[in-house]
This record gives sequence, C-alpha cells and structure tokens, in this order.
Amino acid sequence: MTASAARRCLTIVLAAGEGTRMRSDLPKVLHRAAGRSLLGHVLAAARDAGSEALAVVVGPGREDVAAETKRLAPEARVYVQEERRGTAHAVLAAREALAEGYDDVLIVYGDTPLVRAETLRRLRAPLARGAGVTVLGFEAQDPTGYGRLISEGANLVAIREEKDATDAERAIRLSNGGLMSLSGAHALDLLDRIGDQNAKREFYLTDVVEVAVRSGLVVAVEAAPEAEVQGVNTRAQLAAVEAAFQNRLRAAALEGGATLIAPETVFFSHDTALGRDVMVEPNVVFAPGVSVADGAVIHAFSHLEGAEVGPGVSVGPFARLRPGTRLGAGAKVGNFVEVKNAQVEEGAKLNHLTYVGDARVGARANLGAGTITCNYDGVSKFRTDIGADAFIGSNTALIAPVTVGDGAYVGTGSVVTEDVPADALAIARSRQVTKPGRAASLRAAQKAKKAAKTKD
Amino acid sequence: MTASAARRCLTIVLAAGEGTRMRSDLPKVLHRAAGRSLLGHVLAAARDAGSEALAVVVGPGREDVAAETKRLAPEARVYVQEERRGTAHAVLAAREALAEGYDDVLIVYGDTPLVRAETLRRLRAPLARGAGVTVLGFEAQDPTGYGRLISEGANLVAIREEKDATDAERAIRLSNGGLMSLSGAHALDLLDRIGDQNAKREFYLTDVVEVAVRSGLVVAVEAAPEAEVQGVNTRAQLAAVEAAFQNRLRAAALEGGATLIAPETVFFSHDTALGRDVMVEPNVVFAPGVSVADGAVIHAFSHLEGAEVGPGVSVGPFARLRPGTRLGAGAKVGNFVEVKNAQVEEGAKLNHLTYVGDARVGARANLGAGTITCNYDGVSKFRTDIGADAFIGSNTALIAPVTVGDGAYVGTGSVVTEDVPADALAIARSRQVTKPGRAASLRAAQKAKKAAKTKD
Amino acid sequence: MTASAARRCLTIVLAAGEGTRMRSDLPKVLHRAAGRSLLGHVLAAARDAGSEALAVVVGPGREDVAAETKRLAPEARVYVQEERRGTAHAVLAAREALAEGYDDVLIVYGDTPLVRAETLRRLRAPLARGAGVTVLGFEAQDPTGYGRLISEGANLVAIREEKDATDAERAIRLSNGGLMSLSGAHALDLLDRIGDQNAKREFYLTDVVEVAVRSGLVVAVEAAPEAEVQGVNTRAQLAAVEAAFQNRLRAAALEGGATLIAPETVFFSHDTALGRDVMVEPNVVFAPGVSVADGAVIHAFSHLEGAEVGPGVSVGPFARLRPGTRLGAGAKVGNFVEVKNAQVEEGAKLNHLTYVGDARVGARANLGAGTITCNYDGVSKFRTDIGADAFIGSNTALIAPVTVGDGAYVGTGSVVTEDVPADALAIARSRQVTKPGRAASLRAAQKAKKAAKTKD
Repeated sequence: MTASAARRCLTIVLAAGEGTRMRSDLPKVLHRAAGRSLLGHVLAAARDAGSEALAVVVGPGREDVAAETKRLAPEARVYVQEERRGTAHAVLAAREALAEGYDDVLIVYGDTPLVRAETLRRLRAPLARGAGVTVLGFEAQDPTGYGRLISEGANLVAIREEKDATDAERAIRLSNGGLMSLSGAHALDLLDRIGDQNAKREFYLTDVVEVAVRSGLVVAVEAAPEAEVQGVNTRAQLAAVEAAFQNRLRAAALEGGATLIAPETVFFSHDTALGRDVMVEPNVVFAPGVSVADGAVIHAFSHLEGAEVGPGVSVGPFARLRPGTRLGAGAKVGNFVEVKNAQVEEGAKLNHLTYVGDARVGARANLGAGTITCNYDGVSKFRTDIGADAFIGSNTALIAPVTVGDGAYVGTGSVVTEDVPADALAIARSRQVTKPGRAASLRAAQKAKKAAKTKD
Repeated sequence: MTASAARRCLTIVLAAGEGTRMRSDLPKVLHRAAGRSLLGHVLAAARDAGSEALAVVVGPGREDVAAETKRLAPEARVYVQEERRGTAHAVLAAREALAEGYDDVLIVYGDTPLVRAETLRRLRAPLARGAGVTVLGFEAQDPTGYGRLISEGANLVAIREEKDATDAERAIRLSNGGLMSLSGAHALDLLDRIGDQNAKREFYLTDVVEVAVRSGLVVAVEAAPEAEVQGVNTRAQLAAVEAAFQNRLRAAALEGGATLIAPETVFFSHDTALGRDVMVEPNVVFAPGVSVADGAVIHAFSHLEGAEVGPGVSVGPFARLRPGTRLGAGAKVGNFVEVKNAQVEEGAKLNHLTYVGDARVGARANLGAGTITCNYDGVSKFRTDIGADAFIGSNTALIAPVTVGDGAYVGTGSVVTEDVPADALAIARSRQVTKPGRAASLRAAQKAKKAAKTKD
Repeated sequence: MTASAARRCLTIVLAAGEGTRMRSDLPKVLHRAAGRSLLGHVLAAARDAGSEALAVVVGPGREDVAAETKRLAPEARVYVQEERRGTAHAVLAAREALAEGYDDVLIVYGDTPLVRAETLRRLRAPLARGAGVTVLGFEAQDPTGYGRLISEGANLVAIREEKDATDAERAIRLSNGGLMSLSGAHALDLLDRIGDQNAKREFYLTDVVEVAVRSGLVVAVEAAPEAEVQGVNTRAQLAAVEAAFQNRLRAAALEGGATLIAPETVFFSHDTALGRDVMVEPNVVFAPGVSVADGAVIHAFSHLEGAEVGPGVSVGPFARLRPGTRLGAGAKVGNFVEVKNAQVEEGAKLNHLTYVGDARVGARANLGAGTITCNYDGVSKFRTDIGADAFIGSNTALIAPVTVGDGAYVGTGSVVTEDVPADALAIARSRQVTKPGRAASLRAAQKAKKAAKTKD
C-alpha cells in the first residue's frame, strides 16, 4: 500500500456550473462522453485515485444531478450551493465533509472529465510529504488567458492572472489547471480565509495559494497534459472531449490485440471490453455494457449495447445487439438483424432480416430470413424458446409465449401460435393457387383503372 | 437599410467552364456539395448579399445549366458565351444586363461555391463609397502561382502575375481571388476597353484593374479567408469544398445547441435545421429538406431526407426517412425501418423491419416488426390509413388502399385486403398444423437427397 | 522492354518475423490491409516490378504463411528459416534460389506492404548499370533510431547505426529503409561473407554494404518516401498502413472521375474498380472483388463484396451485396436488402427489406418489400428463377427450387412452393376475417391478465 493510499481522502466535485453556453436544458455535467456522464467520469477517476469519500456540490434545484450522483456513487454526499459566490464558496458548501478530518482533500470539476486517476494520485502525493496545497498545472500550447503558475523549484509562489503578469511571467507556459489538493488538516482554515475583495465579490479557490503561502505552508505543483484539464463549456468542447476519450479507448483496444481497420470510425464506451484477435470493421458503435470475446468479428455498420459476444462470433454487417443479448461461441448474427434480451447459444444462426427479443435460441438453431419473435401483444411482453438444432423457415412469426422444441422444423411463412414439440414439423400456411394468364389480365385492368383516374 | 442594400445590384455568375479535369459528363457547376449544386450555392450567396438581378453565363449547348438556373432562380437570365475568349469576354455575354444601369455589378464564379454572402456585401461596399472596382483578395498560405495584389493603402495598384513579379512582390501573400465588383456606371466602359494582347488572345477580367487605374478610378481591395475562394477543378477539390461546407454546418449545429457525438461523421445539407438539445449519434446523413425539432434523438446509422422530425422523436439506429415523412411528437422509428411520404402521428411506434409508404399512422399506433404497407400494385400507388391506438401484428401486409380504424387490432402474419373498422379485430392466416416427428424424417430425406446428388 | 525488364529477377520476401507485439495468433504477414494480406501486397509489388521468381522465407511451422503464399503465387517457393539468426541468415534460407543465377535479387519484407512496384523497379535499376548492391533509403522526418546512409555522390559508403554516428552523421536524415537489391552474380558470395561478430551473434543483412564496399563493388542508394517503408509491428501500425492504402485508393478513385462525397468515410479494397461519374455517398465499404460501372450511385451505408454493379445502377442506402452479385444496367437495390450469388437483370427493382440469394431476377421484375428467396432447407441450397417483368407482392417467400415466369404476378404474403407459369397469378394466403369490437374486448382481457399477473 502506497503512502497516499493509506491516507484517507475526500474528493469534492464542483458540479454547480450552469453551463449556459451549452444551450441545453440538461445540466452540463450530465452531458455524456464515451457513454457516461461527465460527472460519472470524474467520480470514477476520484474513486480510482483512492478517494474513499465523495462530495458533489450542485446548484439549487438540481435534483437531476443529485440523482445521477446517487445512481453512480450511492455513498456520495450531495451539497447544494445555494448562491453563486465563486469556486471557494462552492467548495465550502461541503463544509460538513471537510470538517470530518480527512488527510487529503481533492477538488475536481464535474465538467473536466478527462483527468486520469493517476494524475489525481500524483496531485495527492505532495500532501503526504507535508505540502499544504498542490495545484495541477499544465503546459499550455497557447497560455493566453490562463493564470500562470509562478514557482520556485518545486514550490508554487503564486498564480498570476494574465492581466497582472509581467512580460517574463507571460512567457511562462505552465498554467493553472484548476484542480487542486488540500491538506485535510488545513483545508477548512485556508478556505475560510479566502476573501471576496474583487470586482465580482466572489470567493475564488485560486486565492487559496496566496493564503497558504502567507501561512508559511508549502504549495506544490504537479503537471498534467493539457488534454486532461480540458473543460466543457460548449457543445464543440464536448465533442472535443468525446474525441479525446475515443482516441484513448481506440489506442487501448489496439494495444490489447484487437484489429480496428479504421480506428477513427469505431466508437467505444468507457467500459467496452474487447478480447484478443477481435476484428472490428469500419463504422461500429459500442454503446455501454459490451464485451467481445477472443476471435469475434464485428462487421461494418454494427451497433452493440449491453451485449456479451462470445468467442468466434460473427456480428453484422448491419446488426444491432440491444441490452441483454448474449451470443454463444461461434454464433452468427447477420445483416438487418436485431437481438434484444436474448440468449443465442453456440453456433446458432440469425442470418438476415430477423428480430429476436425476449428469447432463447438453442445451439445450432437456424432462423430463416424474416423470422420474428412476437414478444409484445400490445400490453405485455412474453418469451420465445427455440430449441437446439431447430430450423425456422423464412418469414415466420413466433407468437410468444411459445416453445419450439429441439430439432423441430417450422415451415416457411408460418405463424406459430402453439408449442412445437421436439423433432416435430409445424406449418401454418395456405396452399398455393395458380391462375394461368391472370397476371396479364390483372395488369390490363390496373392500367385501365389508372388511365381512367388520370382522366378525371 | 444599409447603403449597399439601397443600391441596385446585378450579379453575373460565370458558369461556362468546361471542367475537363473533373472527368465528368456533368458540367462542373452542377456537381453538388452539401446537397446543392455549386451553382446553387453561388446564386444563394448572391441573393443573400442583396443582389436583385442575376445573370448566369453558360457555355454553348448547356441547357442543363440553364435549367438548373431557372429551377433555383426563375428570375435569373441566362446568357450563352458562344466562344471561349476569356473571362472578360464571358462577362460581356451579359452585355444586355450590364446596360440596364445597376449601381453595383458583382462578378462571381459558378465553381467557387464557398464564398459567403457577407463577403459579397463587403465586396460591394467600396462601390458605395465611390470606388470603380473592388477586387477580392485572400492571404494565401502558399501564394506560389497566384497573381499578387499590389496595393497602396486601401487601394489596389495592380495585380502582378507570378512571372512578372519582383522578389519583393513575390513576398506578398495577398493574392487575387478572382471575384470582383464593378461600379455599374463604369462597368461596360471598363470591360469594353480590355484587350486581347496576350499569348492566348483572350480577354482577361483581371485586366480591368489596369484599365480602371488608367482611367483614374479608385480600385479597392477586400480580403476574404482563403477557403472562400477555393475553386473546384477536380473531384479532390470538390471533396475539399464539401468538407469545408460540412465543417461550417457542423459548427453551426453545435453552436445552436445540438449534440453531435462525433461531428466529423455527421453529414448535413445546406438546409438542415436542428433544434435545441437534439442529439445526433455518429454516422448520420441528412440529405436536403430535413428539420428536427427540440429534444429529438437521431441514432447512429440513420439517413434522412425531406423529413420533418417532431419534438422528442427517436429515429434509428438504421432508420431511413424519405421525402414526405412527418413524425409527430415522441414518435419512434426504429431499426431497419423505411418511411416515405407518410404522417406518423404523436407517439406512434414503428420499431423494426417495417416499410411505411404513402400512409398515415395514427397517434400511439404500434406496428409490429415486419409490417409492410403495400402501396404499389405494379402500376399505381395507393394510400394506407392506420387509426390511432391501432395495433398491427408482426409480419403483416396492408394492401392499399386500405383503412385500419382507431383501436383496431390486426393479427400477426395477416394480409389485410379489406378495411378494418375501429376496435375490430382482423385476421388472415392459416391454422397451425403440427406433425410429430416429421422434422426428423424430413431432415433424413433431405440429407439422403443431397448425398445422392453429390454422388452424381 | 526496359533494361531491367530484360534481366531475370528473383525476389526474396522475408516473412519469418513472429510479430509478438501484434498480440495475435495470426502471423503478422497474414494480417490484412485494403482487403489483402500484407504478404499479398508485397508479392504483388514484386511481380509488378518484373520479378519472375519469388521466394518466401517463413518461420518454422508456419504452414499458414506457406499456404497463403501458394494461394497468391503458386509459382513461389517457400523456404523455412529454422533458427532465428538474423536477416542475412533468413535470406540465405533461400540459398537454392540464389544459386540459380538470376541477374537481380530483390530483398523485401512481408511486413512492409506499402512499397510500390515502381520503387522496386528503381531499386533494381542500378544493378543494370553495374552496381553490386542497392539500398533503399528514405528521408526520415525524425531519423532518431534509424541507421543513417553515409554516401559519396550516388554511392553508399556505409550504413551507420545511431549509436556509432558522429554528430554530423546524426544530422543526416537519409535513413536505411531495409529493402535492398543485390547483383545476382555476387549475391551468394556477399551474403556468405557476412559474419555474426556482434552482441546477439546474428547475421545482419545491413552488413552486406560493408562487405560489398570492401570487395570494391559499387553500392548505390535509391530513395523512397518514408511511407513506403513503414513496417507493421503493432496493431496501431497496421491501422496506419491501412489508412495509407485507403488514401492512395481514394485519391485514385477521385482522379479516375468518381465523386466521393466524403472520401475519408469510403473504404476500398486493393482491387476495387470504379467507373466514371460513379457517385459514392458517405460511409461505404468495398470489400474485395467489386467493380462499379459508369454512372452508378452507391448510397450511404452500403457494403459490397464480390459484386459487379452495372451502369446507372442504384445501390442502398443500407444495402449489402455479397459475392456473386451481378446487377444489370439501371437495376435498383434499396434499403435493408441483401443480395448474394444472384444475377439481377436490367432495370429490376429490389427496393426494400429483401433477401435474394442463389437467384436470377429478370429484367424489370419488381420485388415487393419483404420478399425472401428461401434458398436453404437446412441441408442444401437451391436456386430461384424470377422472370422478366414479374411482380412479387410484399412479404412473399419463394421456396427454392422454384421458377416464376415472365410477367407472372405473385400475391402479397404468399409462400410460393410451386412454379408459376409466365403471366400467371399465384397466390397462397388466407381470407381475411374481421370481428367487430373484438380488439376492444381482447385488449381488456390482456390488461386484466397483466394486472392479475402483477398481483401474483
């Protein structure tokens, strides 16, 4: 166990921003990237950095943010910042938690979702060595507009705003990333000493550095890549953050031994798990909750969500797997096929134009094109059970609840309303009637009718 | 009303280029970007810049360009440049229009579609202040090969071709963009004084600058971003112009409050209209004529054209909306569903594998998987009308013209040929017959047959 | 015939690398790019460069690489490098071939697939002018880590490894690309004189330069773009190589007179052939074996493999053409349609939700939505033959083997089990029964049942 892991840590997530530039009814931190809310990314990073306590500060009336917090982290506490009086004021909304005597206090932002757990761990580390505050800096490609970090050796002396900076200070590229850690022993005292003597009469968290320096505390600085402190204030920035997550996830998939023919066209969720020698063709979307076992092939134009794909399975092109889909080894889900809440066992084939929902498809069963499980009667949902080695003819509707036994055969174009025993043949269709010459006369009649209509 | 708006303006669009490097049977200006012909973009910009008269100069025999002009701008006049004798010669094909005494004359190119209306307005502005000519320049990233704009203050002295330029002049990056405005009072006189004393014996529009300077007229210069004067001579340049349009449209969508998870995978048309909090997943194509109301979600792999998508609607993944589709609030069009010329009312559901064409689907109606409106009998098209709260079982064909009343229920696998009254049940299918053990014997027979065949 | 073409050439392909960084069960050279194995690209380049003999050196037990070699180039000889003792040792595994007295010997790498035939021809050229060895160099953007090519005039003096280089030598950007040509007359002698006096006790091909220089032979150098010598050691590099191939293929398609609305979203195979004025919308995948004739349109979200698309054909959106598909002039394959091993004749229409496999569809025939050819009975595959001008109603299943004659009409919702003569009407469906008020009572019963169940 490392030093910082032994220390008890509280993370305060500032999530009260209104996000007006998003032009959205949804609060900013509930927008999503890589299949998870921005808040969710930040909470996950805080936990992975060893934070045992979580406090989320929300704006007044933001029950939705509180609910998402509780959904993701039931142990987290939610505090409401009743008035907007600056970042330090927001942190102090969590005064109750701050007073509980944690060793480390991390302060992160709900709209800065790219920060990595390892970066947060580095941000905590100086506290264990006696620092009072650690500030996360980044080497800005263009530092214009950012507060510059003025340091002496490893210690931070001041955060200088652009307008107050000398030319020499302006040349500094190490800029304030906003995230911070505070020594739990000093945190409340430091925060309470921040004043509002400024144009907007707000309490700025940045001022904690000056307060700490005045108190003789060591203020450390840690640097992160600029991308990690990228905040989200607009939809364009949200798209940029999404792209950054995707690039991380694509690189990890390649590193893990998957082939992505065109990585830039594959969209992952934060929790997508790909096995070795998985092949992913261009244009595939992995919504949350997907795992793909070794050697499976996900063909182009496929959309997967909440699905477990077994080894050697072939999916798509043009397949949609919805939540609750489990595909056994070597199964095949082909084009224009939708599967939902269904277990498709080893070697079963759903090759074309099929809907399987709320069902089990037994091993090696073959469903013809146009097979549909009718799981909904307009009021309730029911299950379909298809046995191993069953063969379902094309254009067949199976009206659930219904069972087709192992090795049974259902004739093409049937509507199956009753269970079919194992090895039985079921058929429900009309005999073909053929009327010689009738197509020709029918066509003539149709044309005459059309001509008459056109004259009207 | 601004000064330039009060002035009467004629825009001459040069559209006689052959475009041989396109290797196409289609004339260059009829190639499309963002769902509109290049010519269409230029005409729209001219109109938006306040031009009340439009003249399009086409090559001999180009009825197709003339037709597109009339389709887009019925008021425009089309002139034929009978011989290819240079750009000034082309402009003079519109001599009749030039003689009508407009205040401003804009000269633009049918193959330079990225120019913005605001740029054209800026190009007109100096004329209102007394200039005889205004030339549109651009700061070339690499000016090699372009004519350089030699200016004194805001006034242009000369356009210097690369080969005639001094080293100092070659260092100038402000280059000739080709577009121009002429004072209507002087235009014909200036153009007529351009000579053909050059290698190719052509009349070059560029020479108007020298003529004007010699006449003591003020020649002004306005600058535009290089992208706006990007011409289209090859398919690669066409693709670049398309990309530029897409980037503009994506930025505007984000700015307007839509989420594009992966903006680079969403393709818009020039007229796509997205509401606030619209969510667009990766890989969506908006062909012309689509509007999407607030809060709708367009899932991945969807293709929309000529469709009105209501508030809170869910489309896709894998949905295709064709012209004439109107989706009411909260309607749902799911995977592998095609809708054409149909009104789908509030809350109706078309979840899977369905074709709805020439139809109305009433509020809250539910169409099972595999529902097909048979709107075509091989000769004519007919309409299907499905009432509110109707429930259509899976794999059902509705043979138009046909009406299914409110609250009616159609059994799975039916072919509906007669109207179904409100709240009635219609069913058209055969009874299931089950033959125990027959699948096993059938399989044995099939295998024997195959084995026999293989032996042959 | 050029000088080099008159000379007999042997190409040795080194393909014994283990590729452990790929984390794959598949040997590195069998991974694919642009629809062909890496090895396949290299063999094709060697052949196109005029190499009449091919030798592939594989690792022990690599029957799969040997098999791929034989599949692609039956004339090639495969040699096994039993121990891993360096690149020169690998080349000498082909001693038998080297001893046969070819004029030129090319040495290439199975994992360097981007090298062009014209580059290999340039690499051979100095041999015809008397050189003993030619080394392929490239101007490295960042040469760090590469061996630098130290030359005097056109002649190479040495390949200097980074660690042995002087500062002046490190400033050289011309780096060793690995590929080489050897004079056949000297090749064996030179290779046999390479020693293993180095840390790893391996025989390095690079040392051939020093050996040749010591022997007084001329060592020439030819330069290639860096991209051509890009090797594949990781999945990320494989993706980069794929991207490079795609960019070549996209540029060639544009150059040839096809419109790609968004070239970066179109994926080609090495052998895709597009005609003039072909339009390809965004998001199209061309797997191997596709040709598209003039004026055809491939709409968005289409996937084609092994298909011949005739002039003026319209494919997609959301269409899948599988191997053996031939589409006649003006045919139309619409959304959610799969075609496999089928000839679709002039002007035939498969507009929606259809599966056509192992079939012929006659000229101008129209298949309604939901038409399915049932080509598989669970054991064997059979053919369907649809005549010219036939009209197949929606939701129809055609049970193969079956023939529908010219001009015949099949009623909607039929299961066709017997041949339909020309101009006949076939129908196989049940009469509609309508029960007034039954939907309402049914719904009430369903709701009561659900309520009862919920209580349980």
